[in-house]
Amino acid sequence: MGPGPSNPYPEVTMALAGPVVGHLDPQFLELLDSTNDRLRRVFATANGLTLPVSGTGSAGMEASFVNFVRPGDPVVVGVNGVFGERMCEVACRQGAEVVRVDADWGHPLDPARLLAAHPSPAIIAVVHAETSTGVRNEIEPLGRGKGTALLLVDTVTSLGGIPVAVDDWAVDIAYSGTQKCLGVPPGLSPLTVSDRALGRLVERPSSWYLDLNLLARYVNDSSGGGRVYHHTAPVAMVAALHAGLGALLDEGLAAAWERHAECGALLQEGLVDLGLELLVQAEHRLPQLTTVRVPGGVDEAAVRRDLLGSYGIEIGAGAGQLAGQVWRIGCMGNTARRRNVFALLGALREVLGR
Amino acid sequence: MGPGPSNPYPEVTMALAGPVVGHLDPQFLELLDSTNDRLRRVFATANGLTLPVSGTGSAGMEASFVNFVRPGDPVVVGVNGVFGERMCEVACRQGAEVVRVDADWGHPLDPARLLAAHPSPAIIAVVHAETSTGVRNEIEPLGRGKGTALLLVDTVTSLGGIPVAVDDWAVDIAYSGTQKCLGVPPGLSPLTVSDRALGRLVERPSSWYLDLNLLARYVNDSSGGGRVYHHTAPVAMVAALHAGLGALLDEGLAAAWERHAECGALLQEGLVDLGLELLVQAEHRLPQLTTVRVPGGVDEAAVRRDLLGSYGIEIGAGAGQLAGQVWRIGCMGNTARRRNVFALLGALREVLGR
Repeated sequence: MGPGPSNPYPEVTMALAGPVVGHLDPQFLELLDSTNDRLRRVFATANGLTLPVSGTGSAGMEASFVNFVRPGDPVVVGVNGVFGERMCEVACRQGAEVVRVDADWGHPLDPARLLAAHPSPAIIAVVHAETSTGVRNEIEPLGRGKGTALLLVDTVTSLGGIPVAVDDWAVDIAYSGTQKCLGVPPGLSPLTVSDRALGRLVERPSSWYLDLNLLARYVNDSSGGGRVYHHTAPVAMVAALHAGLGALLDEGLAAAWERHAECGALLQEGLVDLGLELLVQAEHRLPQLTTVRVPGGVDEAAVRRDLLGSYGIEIGAGAGQLAGQVWRIGCMGNTARRRNVFALLGALREVLGR
Repeated sequence: MGPGPSNPYPEVTMALAGPVVGHLDPQFLELLDSTNDRLRRVFATANGLTLPVSGTGSAGMEASFVNFVRPGDPVVVGVNGVFGERMCEVACRQGAEVVRVDADWGHPLDPARLLAAHPSPAIIAVVHAETSTGVRNEIEPLGRGKGTALLLVDTVTSLGGIPVAVDDWAVDIAYSGTQKCLGVPPGLSPLTVSDRALGRLVERPSSWYLDLNLLARYVNDSSGGGRVYHHTAPVAMVAALHAGLGALLDEGLAAAWERHAECGALLQEGLVDLGLELLVQAEHRLPQLTTVRVPGGVDEAAVRRDLLGSYGIEIGAGAGQLAGQVWRIGCMGNTARRRNVFALLGALREVLGR
């Protein structure tokens, strides 16, 4: 119950233990196509270029900037947590002129300020669900007001846990991670790119490994000339993702969001009942990631150690400027179950002596 | 029996199906430390910075260049196959002045020509085992003659299958892949960096994801201030690598090399007995990857389809300039077994009607 990785769905574990086939085997290519179709459904998009990047969520972030930022490009980045900060650093290394729009950690970004930050940004980049604070940032107003900018959204902690609607929200580039609400171990980063963004691909980005021009030729057989080998796809992890997306879609996206919402609400009520204070105001709170203030006089690391050692439950420490001040409790993917919420609340009551 | 991925060791499959723990869980950090120790033994090095990069072999290649190349640096690259070509491309994107030293595909590089190619190269880069041709390039003379240059070696297809001696050969940067002779699915790239190379790390490389300054602070707790979170490690794949390295070290490196040598020799003799012609001369041939010429009048793709469809055996097509002219047959990791060699030879005899 940390901020990810979550526990995988049983179907995912089975898939990981299955036979390994070649990355150019027809059976694998069919699995990859099917995985990308499932990703389209989960991202709610018709984007042709939708694929799992062969690295963790941060590789997806890097792919999202490295393929679209040209030196000197003005890039507006919303910062209200660790992952907004990381976006600034990644964009900066590609030579972007980064225009930061900050909000206090634990509070949401103001869409109007993001839209007014620069007269003609190349990109507006925002984290949908800030894993470091548990805040949900609004995306829809940015899509409506983005003008000529590309809208780039981090959905690492949101995808599968709360509604994400890439096409309806006019998101141009979105990436995610497998280890949060998708219920798959970490290792891949689902990525989707709008046709509008495809027209602005950097021709020869600094990264060969993450070059979407090359990846597209392996992932899609659109040219009719067959797939072009790029790198050896991580076949076992792709099979795991395929299975996790299958479990999610079999349940139904709406049902999964409802399950996350219910577990998050139970957890948050239970924490308040224990006399603890939540960091984020109710209307901006994520169900899948809850930040709770460490009460005065309590050794926060000792509580985490005790939960892990005596109860087998992981919760996360605070990150960045919230280090030492909060705990982060995840309720994501297959971990988002009532029984897990009640087990944690019971254990925490004992450990805190309340 | 393609050019990788190979079949995983049973211990690897078991590890993949094990419980997922957090990337900062003490149990996982212990597993990571142990994995890096095992990698040191397999690389035959005492290098402090030895880790699995969170991407496939090509991510290891990119990490090896992106962290050490400064714009304008002269970088000598040996090219006698697809992966030497790829090194040129990756180095070039980092602004290197690439000095190519070519050899005909199917023939080894000449170490003397590599050493004489530039008066003071920053880096000399070579692929140890060219997966596209089945040629073994000599590394030892390059270590002796490298002068002030860093020696960068691709050991993707060699590590675990033939001797690799990072320290004895004075290799400064070596990367590998999990899916060849290590018997683990694709997804990670073992990397090791000498202390000499550490002194020349680029301070802020274009890639944040592959930045070794940051990765070192997560992988090693050397500062005494604890690990610093960078990205979420792919915990399931690290567990798989740990198990695969365990299987390899339990067998013993020398025994594993001997097994690869024996299987490679049996395969190559068997192919010649079938009247087929091998691409590479005996003294430069890899046991774990054999290239064999497609006989005149034979539909090479049909043969591969038949082997896969009727016998469940994958072999690889030619790559790059050898496309359509050769097959590539892997005998790597857990696939390097006499029974697999004989199964393939029997099937190939039937399919070719010999």
